[in-house]
Amino acid sequence: MNLRTASPPALLDAAVQGDRVALARLLTIVERGGQPSSEVARLAYAAPAPYTVGITGAPGAGKSTLTNKLVSVARGGWPATTDFPSSTTEPPAATTEPVDQVGVLAIDPSSPFSGGAILGDRIRMQDHAMDPSVFIRSMATRGHLGGLALAVPDAVRVLGAVGIPLVVVETVGVGQMEVEVASAADTTVVVVTPGWGDSMQANKAGLLEVADVFVVNKADRPGVREATRDLEQMLDLSAPSGWRPPVVATVASTGEGIEGLWSAVARHRAHLVSTGALEARRAARVADELRRVLTARVLEDIQSLAAAGRFADAVAAIAAGTLDPYRAASELLARKTAT
Amino acid sequence: MNLRTASPPALLDAAVQGDRVALARLLTIVERGGQPSSEVARLAYAAPAPYTVGITGAPGAGKSTLTNKLVSVARGGWPATTDFPSSTTEPPAATTEPVDQVGVLAIDPSSPFSGGAILGDRIRMQDHAMDPSVFIRSMATRGHLGGLALAVPDAVRVLGAVGIPLVVVETVGVGQMEVEVASAADTTVVVVTPGWGDSMQANKAGLLEVADVFVVNKADRPGVREATRDLEQMLDLSAPSGWRPPVVATVASTGEGIEGLWSAVARHRAHLVSTGALEARRAARVADELRRVLTARVLEDIQSLAAAGRFADAVAAIAAGTLDPYRAASELLARKTAT
Repeated sequence: MNLRTASPPALLDAAVQGDRVALARLLTIVERGGQPSSEVARLAYAAPAPYTVGITGAPGAGKSTLTNKLVSVARGGWPATTDFPSSTTEPPAATTEPVDQVGVLAIDPSSPFSGGAILGDRIRMQDHAMDPSVFIRSMATRGHLGGLALAVPDAVRVLGAVGIPLVVVETVGVGQMEVEVASAADTTVVVVTPGWGDSMQANKAGLLEVADVFVVNKADRPGVREATRDLEQMLDLSAPSGWRPPVVATVASTGEGIEGLWSAVARHRAHLVSTGALEARRAARVADELRRVLTARVLEDIQSLAAAGRFADAVAAIAAGTLDPYRAASELLARKTAT
Repeated sequence: MNLRTASPPALLDAAVQGDRVALARLLTIVERGGQPSSEVARLAYAAPAPYTVGITGAPGAGKSTLTNKLVSVARGGWPATTDFPSSTTEPPAATTEPVDQVGVLAIDPSSPFSGGAILGDRIRMQDHAMDPSVFIRSMATRGHLGGLALAVPDAVRVLGAVGIPLVVVETVGVGQMEVEVASAADTTVVVVTPGWGDSMQANKAGLLEVADVFVVNKADRPGVREATRDLEQMLDLSAPSGWRPPVVATVASTGEGIEGLWSAVARHRAHLVSTGALEARRAARVADELRRVLTARVLEDIQSLAAAGRFADAVAAIAAGTLDPYRAASELLARKTAT
């Protein structure tokens, strides 16, 4: 099969058979967007969605290492959820549901201005570089951050369509769009470190709102007790919604606490399933995705509008003070509908 | 005049006469958006735009204090631009153009999720609290960050329409939208501190691209030489475009270097005026504003589309795997056009 010319259905067939190059090609198509991407999405959305775990937190919080270690533990399967231990650090007693493959999407931010991607520290994921049951993919923005918000859900669906039951979506930072991407998961893990409070002041409320599980990583450093207490106090103040995010201490570099993290993720999953919240959450996400696709479609129209002469005329009139942007917008849209 | 019921033209008349409460009311209307805001914009865009200075940088870089001190110096007027000293730290010899009033818009971020505004350290601006020639206003987001990108240019225009010739737009952080807001200025000042490199790794390229003037604030701390060298090296690597951003060292808390900063801003202004870049830059900004207004208009349509029953049907079909978001968007938009 020539991968460059193969059709999306042919690529998907090959990927389902285990062809990783075909899978990578599908994700490239998704990343690039446009018509071919829509065709891939059409195929992918017909398959069941994989379980997704989002991981976000400040740069330097150790998210890559944590993801790396979490993937190793997750490959052991979902722990049994009956008679589940209430402690978040105790490893579960039994394993019931296998996780034969794991997909990792590492979302790299790029400057909104340069368009260049910082590919970051993918090297830390090298534990799994040769493991055929773990598929790792970096995704960068396509010129604008909004592109990722469209491409990531599609990429997750593609991974699901080839039979990968668990996808970890890891973002490099805690920018608005990155938090949005990471929180578009079934379980969202927010990673902090001792002393995180000062550096993430402005984002605290937002992170609290999206977190299903908190991790205090680098728990071998001073201040872990204060960081944990800080989080618990914030959780005390926030309204209960049936699930109180557990706070798990980890040392990702040594693997300490990772079993406890996986167990916390599994408990959250069990909670979502047993309360019916999983379906509701996914429906809300689909609505978000549809809204984004609608927006992108309409923005394409605006781009073509902006390229036209009437747009330049309007800009000149606004600059001259004879028109304001609101009236100009009304006139441009009215003319567009009329043609 | 009853400010709650007064029409935008009546409010603008009063504000031009020096009624600060009427001016504040106009800005509230702009901040809230919608139809009344468009009417204010229509009036404001007919007036000449004020000169705008954007100030951005990491939280804790001392931007409020710097803005406070810069306003004091700016009130002394624009320095003469002929025989301009090439040093960025030496105060200019003569003052030619008065700055009788200064407007300050302090942009406060809010969590994208909570909607609550962090009003920050406005207290530091108290030097000017009783000064009638300085008008200070905090602007928060209106539920979504995109709102600020619309509201800030309109607010700047309103300040210009009441006769304020200089507006400083200061943002609290360096998030994507905040950088965008601060860089929609005639002169953009990027504030860093010694040791900034590590904390702003991901934003470096973006900040470099928008900066017209760099400030290394807190220059009484260790590492100022390294920070300055770091910036100069970055500037050496970036392509020349006729203006190389000067790097000014300041200690905002004592006022050290602020005259040099103002002189650097004035030199940049003189450069923009003499090369014709000011007009080009403003036209590009107007085009951006128009694009934003168009987008906002169309998004309103999508919101009403999303509230309709067909949207819910589409979401259900996507969740069930019988439809994908791209086909759903096409169908929804096609039906919308048909009705």
